[in-house]
Amino acid sequence: MRVKVLGSAAGGGFPQWNCACRNCKGIRERTLNASARSQCQIAVSGNDADWFLLNASPDLRSQIENTPELHAGAGGRTSGTTAPPSILRHSPIAGTVLTGGDLDQVLGLLLLRELEPIHIYATPGIRCLLTEHNIFFYMLSREPWQSVWTDIVPGQSFRLATARSSSYLLCEPVSLSGSFPAYVHGNGTAHLSAKEASLGLLLESSPGGGRLAYFPTVREVEVRLLELFDSCDLLLFDGTFWSDNELARVQRGVRTATEMGHMPISGPDGSLNRLAKLRRPHKIFVHINNTNPIVDKDSLEHRQVADAGWEVAEDGWEFRLQRPNQARCC
Amino acid sequence: MRVKVLGSAAGGGFPQWNCACRNCKGIRERTLNASARSQCQIAVSGNDADWFLLNASPDLRSQIENTPELHAGAGGRTSGTTAPPSILRHSPIAGTVLTGGDLDQVLGLLLLRELEPIHIYATPGIRCLLTEHNIFFYMLSREPWQSVWTDIVPGQSFRLATARSSSYLLCEPVSLSGSFPAYVHGNGTAHLSAKEASLGLLLESSPGGGRLAYFPTVREVEVRLLELFDSCDLLLFDGTFWSDNELARVQRGVRTATEMGHMPISGPDGSLNRLAKLRRPHKIFVHINNTNPIVDKDSLEHRQVADAGWEVAEDGWEFRLQRPNQARCC
Repeated sequence: MRVKVLGSAAGGGFPQWNCACRNCKGIRERTLNASARSQCQIAVSGNDADWFLLNASPDLRSQIENTPELHAGAGGRTSGTTAPPSILRHSPIAGTVLTGGDLDQVLGLLLLRELEPIHIYATPGIRCLLTEHNIFFYMLSREPWQSVWTDIVPGQSFRLATARSSSYLLCEPVSLSGSFPAYVHGNGTAHLSAKEASLGLLLESSPGGGRLAYFPTVREVEVRLLELFDSCDLLLFDGTFWSDNELARVQRGVRTATEMGHMPISGPDGSLNRLAKLRRPHKIFVHINNTNPIVDKDSLEHRQVADAGWEVAEDGWEFRLQRPNQARCC
Repeated sequence: MRVKVLGSAAGGGFPQWNCACRNCKGIRERTLNASARSQCQIAVSGNDADWFLLNASPDLRSQIENTPELHAGAGGRTSGTTAPPSILRHSPIAGTVLTGGDLDQVLGLLLLRELEPIHIYATPGIRCLLTEHNIFFYMLSREPWQSVWTDIVPGQSFRLATARSSSYLLCEPVSLSGSFPAYVHGNGTAHLSAKEASLGLLLESSPGGGRLAYFPTVREVEVRLLELFDSCDLLLFDGTFWSDNELARVQRGVRTATEMGHMPISGPDGSLNRLAKLRRPHKIFVHINNTNPIVDKDSLEHRQVADAGWEVAEDGWEFRLQRPNQARCC
């Protein structure tokens, strides 16, 4: 399985348009030892030809252009839909799996609208939020073959596959203790099931070769999660905030990391401590907020993360997962 | 008045994610004498400090980062709202004026959501489409001071200004014979007034100095428009398509340029011919589709446009409008 990190930042990206914090100022002025990052976006492939996105970031247009494997013409038509034959338009992107409904997880769907077939895997709750409460999404269903939505159920594995290939990726959605996005308010959404709000994903390539855990939004790590992570070769984990009150230092009236559904990295209940005993996976922080000191490679926090065996993802990184237990960063 | 072209392409940008036409293939392979373009986005300022956007493109995040004048900290807080004082977050972007509701004109609004005040000027019809039919927009109204919507009326000029400056830009919305976006379908939108669907904008800086016509979506040019354009120093005009059936050559089942609300550049009813007698304005094509042959600087079509006194906008261009009649490209 190939795993490409198209974007590694939290919502807003790094730098963030309205932010003049030390990190954002430093990267604009080139005084910080750090890389700019677009909003979190992963792409996976089990056969080098068909690619599946994990979520759909608002930066997807430039992320696709920065990734030759995803260029139109690079892989030819991959969808098994009944779309009429296109003359010069097609994409190696066969589909996307949504882990939640936050704008930085879903806005990119609306960038994939140019009458191109796309297969979208989401819980019924997330699908309902998007398609029944936003008429923008009609742009993905102007033709019956354009977007295909498949409901997914936490705990039930499903295959990510295309009609033209016998290979597939097996995907298991894992329900997390998250909440629906902040735009869900008032009436009309009481029927939504909380267990459909926020997912982690386990992906396995078949036949043979590698197991990935993608968990970009984690409020707490229960024992069952530790066991799941230790069954994987590669863990892409929530690296949003270093500390719980980080955002309040740059903007008043904001919530803590935990209130926003992200466990901080530091502290006794932070991810460095809670995940210290993992043995198997290659551990990578993704979804890194612009305020997080670990983006600065010269910071004490960056060194602390590295000393604990973690890496801090950057845009463009790629991993090739192979059995036996190996994750290789190119 | 300063006029910055942050993006010059039509919806989808250039190259477009799912397109392998001659232009898109050529620019990816660096065999075409052309510049990549992000989706159409203009920013204007009358005082070098407060900036107003014309529409809000899906590429706005990278467009802001590519434009130092729009960086957080470059101009300080510009809004006259009652927002609580921010510590390290603010933006020189004071507001945006919408000319329509197409996704490539409005999606960028949702990128301006990080609890930052923003003033949005739109017709009631467009405002209703966005805010009452897409719960995503709740992200712009989580706090009472966050987004301020001002209804605008075709033919009635209004001031683009901020509380901290005495200078302003005068903006006159001009109703065009366009239609509401393709996502407007079915019931519930019959009350929308067609004259609110698509606008051109006339902007004038005061005191003194320059008049801009921004018309990125024009189906037909009536005599009244010719007169308006000839009252301006700079005309940014719909350069979407070269010919009426251009898109059908790369994708089946699509509409003609005219059906999509864009007059082509070529032909007896095209813009080159219809606007040939303009005397005053500096004439620039914007909103250029990835399929348009004028993006290729070596093409006959590009030469034909240049011979007719037009220029083809590229991302990053800037104009400074001054009286007497001068538009200077930096």
